[in-house]
Amino acid sequence: MQLTKQHIADANGNLKGHQADYYYLSQKLIDQGVDVDALVQKVADFQVAIPSWALGAGGTRFGRFSFHGEPGNLEQKIGDVGILHALTQTAGAVSLHIPWDTPTDYAAVKQIADQNGIVFDAINSNTFQDQPGTKHSYKHGSLANSDEAIRAQAVAHNNEVVRIGEKLGSKTLTIWLADGTSFPGQRSFQKALSQTEKSCKEIYGELPQDWSLLIEYKPYEPNFYSTVIMDWGTSFMLANACGDRAYTLVDLGHHLPNSNIEQVVATLMSKGKLGGFHFNDSKYGDDDLTVGSIKPYALFLIFNELVYGMANNPQNPDLAWMIDASHNIKDPLEDLLQSLEAIQEAYAKALLIDQKALEAAQLNHDVVKCQEILQGAYRTDVRPLLQKARLNGGGALNPIEAYRSLKVREGLIGERGKHTVATGL
Amino acid sequence: MQLTKQHIADANGNLKGHQADYYYLSQKLIDQGVDVDALVQKVADFQVAIPSWALGAGGTRFGRFSFHGEPGNLEQKIGDVGILHALTQTAGAVSLHIPWDTPTDYAAVKQIADQNGIVFDAINSNTFQDQPGTKHSYKHGSLANSDEAIRAQAVAHNNEVVRIGEKLGSKTLTIWLADGTSFPGQRSFQKALSQTEKSCKEIYGELPQDWSLLIEYKPYEPNFYSTVIMDWGTSFMLANACGDRAYTLVDLGHHLPNSNIEQVVATLMSKGKLGGFHFNDSKYGDDDLTVGSIKPYALFLIFNELVYGMANNPQNPDLAWMIDASHNIKDPLEDLLQSLEAIQEAYAKALLIDQKALEAAQLNHDVVKCQEILQGAYRTDVRPLLQKARLNGGGALNPIEAYRSLKVREGLIGERGKHTVATGL
Amino acid sequence: MQLTKQHIADANGNLKGHQADYYYLSQKLIDQGVDVDALVQKVADFQVAIPSWALGAGGTRFGRFSFHGEPGNLEQKIGDVGILHALTQTAGAVSLHIPWDTPTDYAAVKQIADQNGIVFDAINSNTFQDQPGTKHSYKHGSLANSDEAIRAQAVAHNNEVVRIGEKLGSKTLTIWLADGTSFPGQRSFQKALSQTEKSCKEIYGELPQDWSLLIEYKPYEPNFYSTVIMDWGTSFMLANACGDRAYTLVDLGHHLPNSNIEQVVATLMSKGKLGGFHFNDSKYGDDDLTVGSIKPYALFLIFNELVYGMANNPQNPDLAWMIDASHNIKDPLEDLLQSLEAIQEAYAKALLIDQKALEAAQLNHDVVKCQEILQGAYRTDVRPLLQKARLNGGGALNPIEAYRSLKVREGLIGERGKHTVATGL
Amino acid sequence: MQLTKQHIADANGNLKGHQADYYYLSQKLIDQGVDVDALVQKVADFQVAIPSWALGAGGTRFGRFSFHGEPGNLEQKIGDVGILHALTQTAGAVSLHIPWDTPTDYAAVKQIADQNGIVFDAINSNTFQDQPGTKHSYKHGSLANSDEAIRAQAVAHNNEVVRIGEKLGSKTLTIWLADGTSFPGQRSFQKALSQTEKSCKEIYGELPQDWSLLIEYKPYEPNFYSTVIMDWGTSFMLANACGDRAYTLVDLGHHLPNSNIEQVVATLMSKGKLGGFHFNDSKYGDDDLTVGSIKPYALFLIFNELVYGMANNPQNPDLAWMIDASHNIKDPLEDLLQSLEAIQEAYAKALLIDQKALEAAQLNHDVVKCQEILQGAYRTDVRPLLQKARLNGGGALNPIEAYRSLKVREGLIGERGKHTVATGL
Repeated sequence: MQLTKQHIADANGNLKGHQADYYYLSQKLIDQGVDVDALVQKVADFQVAIPSWALGAGGTRFGRFSFHGEPGNLEQKIGDVGILHALTQTAGAVSLHIPWDTPTDYAAVKQIADQNGIVFDAINSNTFQDQPGTKHSYKHGSLANSDEAIRAQAVAHNNEVVRIGEKLGSKTLTIWLADGTSFPGQRSFQKALSQTEKSCKEIYGELPQDWSLLIEYKPYEPNFYSTVIMDWGTSFMLANACGDRAYTLVDLGHHLPNSNIEQVVATLMSKGKLGGFHFNDSKYGDDDLTVGSIKPYALFLIFNELVYGMANNPQNPDLAWMIDASHNIKDPLEDLLQSLEAIQEAYAKALLIDQKALEAAQLNHDVVKCQEILQGAYRTDVRPLLQKARLNGGGALNPIEAYRSLKVREGLIGERGKHTVATGL
Repeated sequence: MQLTKQHIADANGNLKGHQADYYYLSQKLIDQGVDVDALVQKVADFQVAIPSWALGAGGTRFGRFSFHGEPGNLEQKIGDVGILHALTQTAGAVSLHIPWDTPTDYAAVKQIADQNGIVFDAINSNTFQDQPGTKHSYKHGSLANSDEAIRAQAVAHNNEVVRIGEKLGSKTLTIWLADGTSFPGQRSFQKALSQTEKSCKEIYGELPQDWSLLIEYKPYEPNFYSTVIMDWGTSFMLANACGDRAYTLVDLGHHLPNSNIEQVVATLMSKGKLGGFHFNDSKYGDDDLTVGSIKPYALFLIFNELVYGMANNPQNPDLAWMIDASHNIKDPLEDLLQSLEAIQEAYAKALLIDQKALEAAQLNHDVVKCQEILQGAYRTDVRPLLQKARLNGGGALNPIEAYRSLKVREGLIGERGKHTVATGL
Repeated sequence: MQLTKQHIADANGNLKGHQADYYYLSQKLIDQGVDVDALVQKVADFQVAIPSWALGAGGTRFGRFSFHGEPGNLEQKIGDVGILHALTQTAGAVSLHIPWDTPTDYAAVKQIADQNGIVFDAINSNTFQDQPGTKHSYKHGSLANSDEAIRAQAVAHNNEVVRIGEKLGSKTLTIWLADGTSFPGQRSFQKALSQTEKSCKEIYGELPQDWSLLIEYKPYEPNFYSTVIMDWGTSFMLANACGDRAYTLVDLGHHLPNSNIEQVVATLMSKGKLGGFHFNDSKYGDDDLTVGSIKPYALFLIFNELVYGMANNPQNPDLAWMIDASHNIKDPLEDLLQSLEAIQEAYAKALLIDQKALEAAQLNHDVVKCQEILQGAYRTDVRPLLQKARLNGGGALNPIEAYRSLKVREGLIGERGKHTVATGL
Repeated sequence: MQLTKQHIADANGNLKGHQADYYYLSQKLIDQGVDVDALVQKVADFQVAIPSWALGAGGTRFGRFSFHGEPGNLEQKIGDVGILHALTQTAGAVSLHIPWDTPTDYAAVKQIADQNGIVFDAINSNTFQDQPGTKHSYKHGSLANSDEAIRAQAVAHNNEVVRIGEKLGSKTLTIWLADGTSFPGQRSFQKALSQTEKSCKEIYGELPQDWSLLIEYKPYEPNFYSTVIMDWGTSFMLANACGDRAYTLVDLGHHLPNSNIEQVVATLMSKGKLGGFHFNDSKYGDDDLTVGSIKPYALFLIFNELVYGMANNPQNPDLAWMIDASHNIKDPLEDLLQSLEAIQEAYAKALLIDQKALEAAQLNHDVVKCQEILQGAYRTDVRPLLQKARLNGGGALNPIEAYRSLKVREGLIGERGKHTVATGL
């Protein structure tokens, strides 16, 4: 099932209401000195990768409820990303997970991606599960393992993932390392860290010259007492040990309660070491909920730092953006549409912040004014701007409404059947 | 310093921009079926009490930075509330704290309140500090104390507070009980709870027939291992033990990390036991920050439950609303203006939720739609509605701008001098 | 594989070292006024149920690493509990989970239990997963569902579980209700609560007269925004609504960060409403780690309240004790042996607290002394007492050493093969 | 009031009970291969500094309850430390806070310290409060301030503190920087960090060659939205920017909920960057409770890493140990005695861990055995070892009992009067 621009235009119907809204808002913003066209273009240029493992229903350790019409292979997954991109014009990339999505026919996979306007973003390795046929188990660790043979297997897997990525046009390897312990004393913290540093350096050493390495961190889960790469400080230290093309990746859900994530973002960008970003939302832990569904103001504050850094930190690379959520009770595609909207909304609002006025208020220690400036941007209803950005590219006025009126899920069920199960979590 | 309607009208200046915004928004909302006039009226009718102890600079255990022109007595405090109310038309009540604000001349105090359109809302006792001249120390507890003489002194103080409140027209006593322990074993949990229940019943027994008792809860601070009334469950149990006119009071800052406060609100209202609400915001603990400055979406979700309960729970009483924040680095009056705006904003957005559509989506298990409905209301820029509500009552278009252009703080410093220090925390 | 007393006696070997330790410690305690024999007897009498789902390897949503020799059916599970009981003399009960462990041959199951000295403790229903062949899905809730047919199915399942339990001699039904929401607005809190109350009452109404109902609470997971029975207050309210034989069940892992669980225990016991207890330990959330492996002092403080309540709260029923942990990286039986040891240790230390001296210090507000008394008990090395209690019953001096020297796991693998997978989580 | 060895020996009375306990325990440990004499010597050699601000009653923002006989000047404070050291033989250092404890007569202060066997450990600056007579206010920051004059004043204060410390024999400056923000947008994270780095380098540049700089971190309080040096990663980055003699200081209470502090300790020691340690305990936040009163097992796990690092990380310097607690409801001296006991206990238990056996179990992935080894050490009652270490130096068998029987507090009240108030928090 592929959505043409005509399908979407039909679903959009009459645009008069939107045009009035956009006219009203853009006039107000222009009066405030905002370059609205440039802002809309920035929103339109912002492209977020969809992970290949997030197109089916997710679950918890307590079980999983099935969903219908899930993609049964990589080609179908890319087709799903294509649907999202057609509707939103902001999902023009896919992020693969190996071995769940190892291509069998590279040419076919690339062709489908091309047809859908999808590129291959960061590629992800997996050393937190045992795969059929692998020699050693990762039960007691992979890149951090004290057992040299297991560690070598995990390094080799990462190298293999890079070779797969090269064939698809990826330029970035993301390592999320689950290694850690569930009980005090189970492992020497110092040795686990030094093994991990050694492994990261080996992987980095094998990277093609135009590739980057992203090192993710997480405080807990699936290990419940310690994780080797537990926080940004540890990831930053490892990235520095590897070299110039190694960076930290921030996943919104991978923090202890009450963490100030925006400050972490600012710190890493100022040091030129923020390489990637995983979007999701959460209330309790790594809940992997729809972006913006719980703490949208925190997301806006994070985007404020990202916008500032993208403008003022030439030392920092372009970032790899990805959604990393789990779709346990919603249609995965609808869930992702909501996430994409929330990301664009936060980005657009952050772009509305008058950085000069903010800096002046900060230097003047006018705390009340600083808050007024941030809240002034945040309270603005930017939906007409997002619609404009989508419409400019041939996307949907209201993606979820279009998705439903075009009966996309019904079409997918028709093509794939009810009971396919997507690979992944 | 008293702000007249003329002062404020002058500060408002030309209203054309507002009128255009209001017209645009109200037309859109009317098209969606919203009764905009009724909504504006509800916002205008919503009155929040200002606590008498929050008009000066607050501090932490690490110190306090002074602020200029603080009110030096109760009359000046009420004058400050009058300024807030004149500007916002939503702060028409004051909540006194005894003994910090015991009136010396009741007639004078009432006259000043009348002049400023301020009524006396819930009155607060203090048994967490020792006052000069009191016989017994509360170092080891007050209403929960095992020592009968100390407990009796604390009960008597509460009775005295009620008598003071009666003279001013209050109808509600709020008890925030700091009693607890800082070390395991320091006190029997069971005995502390039963003493507290006994004390609450005694206080309740002495209440005038038209008075209510509000019982606040808090997990920790100033005690750091346990607090006798630690959560809503404990408060609810005590309120039930007292009787029909005893209720739980929810303070937004008094919860463990990640608590779902909106669910607590819904639970208490369904049982007819939510009696009061203290507004503030926080990132880490009981930080007592400006309302809406950290988690505005959570505030909106809480107002969604409040709006639902006010419409559907006749068993629940009218609520006592109060701001309970600390103003450590902002001008206290500006800080309160920001809080009042945030409260009205959350209320107005909650009123925009289409409850019928929401219920239908809920019954249909359409989780995506439920979220769309909530976010649709939240993403609306309701500032023109709040302005309309203020202007209808003679308030300021933009309260902080008016406060600054009218040089209110400068006027207060002129009247009071720089170095007064308000009583309270 | 069944461990005879002779097997264990052989593994114990020479007891001289133990006897010397026991003599030294018991003399010291007798000098302090402790009735050591009575204490040892209390420890010996303390029996903890093993849940039938915890005898195989557990996992997380990120995967599961297999373990060898897992029990493949209910009979083998009871055999595993028999091994634990033979070694420790403190695991004389099993807690079944339906439908994972629905007996096919009741007589055979009861016979095996009898042979192993195992009784059937509280029985558990499951309405958080869909089972093959059931008509309705619990994806959107069970006992709290707005859909009457689904709710009725869930109630009927609970009634069926009771009928199964009756045949085995159980007297208690435990409900852990996963119902909740993952997104704001997904469900009306008030309606979900009232549906749940209705369902609990229906189940309670069908209970045999000599049965009790235990209502568990949990703040989050598998739902990530709200859980209907989120805390002790909600469970307590529901238990009160049901009647005298309905109680709250406390699971150590089901609390928000920093919760004071011992205070919850004390509160519930003082009101006669603590019915059951699930042991585990955790650092971050519901990590389900080995009891006592992370916060043993907190466990001791909780036991202090349990000991106090068992002695002073005749209004509270006998408690149903159970371990509820997940064994992701340890041999499940060894993990349970460590948990059982930690429980007995905390209980024995709590029994050592001089309650009269503690009360005197509390009444005297001697906070330092209170702490000295608690720490004095806690710092005592009580292992000789636990050994004595085990040896008196024919158990192992050191259960894990005996388990290993008797090659129990190897025996189980020999009987069952490597690749059985136990039902359950 | 000075305690002589004779006073203490009298208070100790008959040592037969201790000797029997020590004999029993040491024989057991010798059988396990422990060099008991060496262990006792290590415990005896471990010296912890007492901060000069912790000898009076502390409080919270809600108030402070007075205590009697507090030291009224620096000489009396050192006298109090002398009492602690005489009783425990483990408190042979004091850590001063400037300007609270700026000496007026250096010779006299040094003489009193000498008489009491007290040396001057790390010295602390204060730029989180305004002092009478200083030109600029730190309300909006000190070392991180955007205002150059304020920043320079804060740097100069630190330089001045070093000059004071030089006269007393200190070799270490500790910076705890409260700078941060209470509201989003209040300050540029990037600029605050770079200003702080600049200030730290300036201070470091002025340090004498034999001095070290310790940089403390803290996530929140007194600022409630962000702190410039928020975590170990930020402190580590700053220490690296300064140079070889700049290190991170870990305060147990300065972490987000659920932090794995022992892993932070291990990481810093492996990189040679852990310079100091502040002991306290907490349940909710920076509660500053008695060491070991809430989470003694976590303290033991931290000491396990410290012991490992002290033995295996020659790249790491000797650490500055200090207690940093607040004494709100206990006699400060008794509270510190309890803290000192808890520190020694955790250290002694950590020394009991069989590191070779632990490493073997780790390499063998024997998670159960690892836990057994740690718990085996932890469950040992080491009090006789601590007593032995104290008695060897002429200290008290039971410090608190001696303190009480010698009527130390009564003596201090006699000398100082009831109503002195110590400087500090």
